[in-house]
Amino acid sequence: MHDLSRLSINQLTTRDQWSLPEAVDGYARAGIGAMAVWWEKLRDVGADYAGRIIRDAGMEVTGYCAGGMLTARDEVRWRRRLDDNRRMVDEAAAIGSSCLVALGGGLDEGDRDIEGARRRALDGFAELLPHARDAGIVLALEPLHPMVCASRSVLCTLRQANDWCDALGGGPEVGVAVDTYNVWWDPELDAQIERAAGRIAAYHVSDWLADTGDLRFDRGMPGDGVIDLGRLARCVAAAGYRGRQEVEILSHRWWREDPNSVVATVIERFGSVM
Amino acid sequence: MHDLSRLSINQLTTRDQWSLPEAVDGYARAGIGAMAVWWEKLRDVGADYAGRIIRDAGMEVTGYCAGGMLTARDEVRWRRRLDDNRRMVDEAAAIGSSCLVALGGGLDEGDRDIEGARRRALDGFAELLPHARDAGIVLALEPLHPMVCASRSVLCTLRQANDWCDALGGGPEVGVAVDTYNVWWDPELDAQIERAAGRIAAYHVSDWLADTGDLRFDRGMPGDGVIDLGRLARCVAAAGYRGRQEVEILSHRWWREDPNSVVATVIERFGSVM
Repeated sequence: MHDLSRLSINQLTTRDQWSLPEAVDGYARAGIGAMAVWWEKLRDVGADYAGRIIRDAGMEVTGYCAGGMLTARDEVRWRRRLDDNRRMVDEAAAIGSSCLVALGGGLDEGDRDIEGARRRALDGFAELLPHARDAGIVLALEPLHPMVCASRSVLCTLRQANDWCDALGGGPEVGVAVDTYNVWWDPELDAQIERAAGRIAAYHVSDWLADTGDLRFDRGMPGDGVIDLGRLARCVAAAGYRGRQEVEILSHRWWREDPNSVVATVIERFGSVM
Repeated sequence: MHDLSRLSINQLTTRDQWSLPEAVDGYARAGIGAMAVWWEKLRDVGADYAGRIIRDAGMEVTGYCAGGMLTARDEVRWRRRLDDNRRMVDEAAAIGSSCLVALGGGLDEGDRDIEGARRRALDGFAELLPHARDAGIVLALEPLHPMVCASRSVLCTLRQANDWCDALGGGPEVGVAVDTYNVWWDPELDAQIERAAGRIAAYHVSDWLADTGDLRFDRGMPGDGVIDLGRLARCVAAAGYRGRQEVEILSHRWWREDPNSVVATVIERFGSVM
């Protein structure tokens, strides 16, 4: 049995198989003591109940996903989304999460002004920050892969996430989430991980499949793809990251499998390639 | 009729419909005086014949695609590919092309050492350079979108292409190809275009579709996507680029259309959105 004290699993990994209570139970049965929670799964059962079963299971929460996405051009929609982000901060606190994973957001329909969208996203984080600080929740800015820039994230690189942390004051209430799938290709990766020292709030792991066929839901199980995950784990460790490695696999292929087998495979790969 | 003196069309735009002679004829009939040539199409007819029909049509050649891809780990395969690159330099010269578009190349099967692949790619360009210089052909380093990093291009950003130009001595025989589809998402785009002043050897145009569903062959006709193409054209112009805008659309959707209609649409969009 591997030492699992550095492993976490994001419940999107078993998105189609398990509700939140089922995931808490399934991961705990497998000996995994930490997980990340997806907002829709939480709202299916309510934050109070979610917090209770997570505490009862002794489960650590490495992240609550996903806030941010504050790029709407319409002021009313933008404000509504900001309110929803405040609610997500409260939900993150209710389940004892260390951070709210915060995404850049995509482009509104018809919007071709990417820099304008970036300004609104950053303004939104600035407005959200006091509430997060009061709740003791770190905003973990997560750059997504540039291929989902239009649809999900005008925040595209770790350099940009570091720049935004600086722009937001650089305090302990903002950090970055480093996701191997999103950043592995970046020629500046090592330098920007080093720059992120002290502010890496989460480390997400999945692999890039050489023959990937989908822009969102074809992530690979660690070891099945081209990323040198051992090297990246050493990089974030060298930058002082002492948290868990959170396996987050969005994949139609794995969503069809028996969830207990998926979890067993995650544990096996954690021991062998991460 | 729009002034077409700044328009070129890459023959991949009509890849499935037209051979090289048909493309030369089709573009010329539409009043387009410049094109880029794809190596397989050239080799279907031979470099000499290709050069003759292109000259006879008075067609300018804005690029020959695509060299580079020097990432093989096996020395024999790497050398063979380098030899093929030298041949491509000669073919580029035979058709009067201003440059050889040079790609980074992907990862060999089983290769997880992306920095090693990058070193081999750069070494390959360095070895190719004297032959290109002698032939009067500019190597136009083209960063591709990070989503094809594993399969086609460990050269992922314009910053990296600029760095490689510098590493290669920064002389007039190396430049960059700026392709809107590949770089539009980059937070550093404006700064890196400015840095590329004097070395922009080609400017390729296609659009990013908001609902794109394929990692390679779902590029959008200019105007159908989210990129502010007018702004990018002004950016490269501000960096001193005076060459043509080369429309390059790799798209199963457009490859099914009547090629004359595709060309007519390109001309219309050149006048309205580029």
